[in-house]
Amino acid sequence: DGDAEAGKGKISACAACHGMNGIASADIYPNLAGQSATYLESALKAYRAGDRKGGMSAMMSPQAAALSDEDIADIAAYYSQQTPEFDGEG
Amino acid sequence: DGDAEAGKGKISACAACHGMNGIASADIYPNLAGQSATYLESALKAYRAGDRKGGMSAMMSPQAAALSDEDIADIAAYYSQQTPEFDGEG
Repeated sequence: DGDAEAGKGKISACAACHGMNGIASADIYPNLAGQSATYLESALKAYRAGDRKGGMSAMMSPQAAALSDEDIADIAAYYSQQTPEFDGEG
Repeated sequence: DGDAEAGKGKISACAACHGMNGIASADIYPNLAGQSATYLESALKAYRAGDRKGGMSAMMSPQAAALSDEDIADIAAYYSQQTPEFDGEG
């Protein structure tokens, strides 16, 4: 598994859209807080591999391309351990 | 916006992996509860358009292909209004 503490030091770029706490800064970006680390890793690797087009892939793929497997595991661990917020609005 | 009540009647297939309450039945599937409706719509439309390859796209694209824009809006509204659960494990 990834190292959430190490992941905290690797999310400066991510935090711009996904927040330091994994709550998205705009509703076009997904919340990451409390999402499963396994899923977050698979999504980041899909972006890194260019398996996702459209949407934010133009932004996400270059970001993910710079990440090693260890970085991805650490970042996924960090966000998966953040507490989701819920305002009932959806 | 979508109609969450109508969405509840359209998620029998989704619930198999994402749960009736939006909490994934396995950690390879994303939790949907409390995710923003806008993001959920964009993800479903990306699967429907074939903009996502790899991962679960082989499963998700045929599912999404059967959905109208209204179905997608309703399903997104429904899951966005479910309460996320968090066990701190990540």
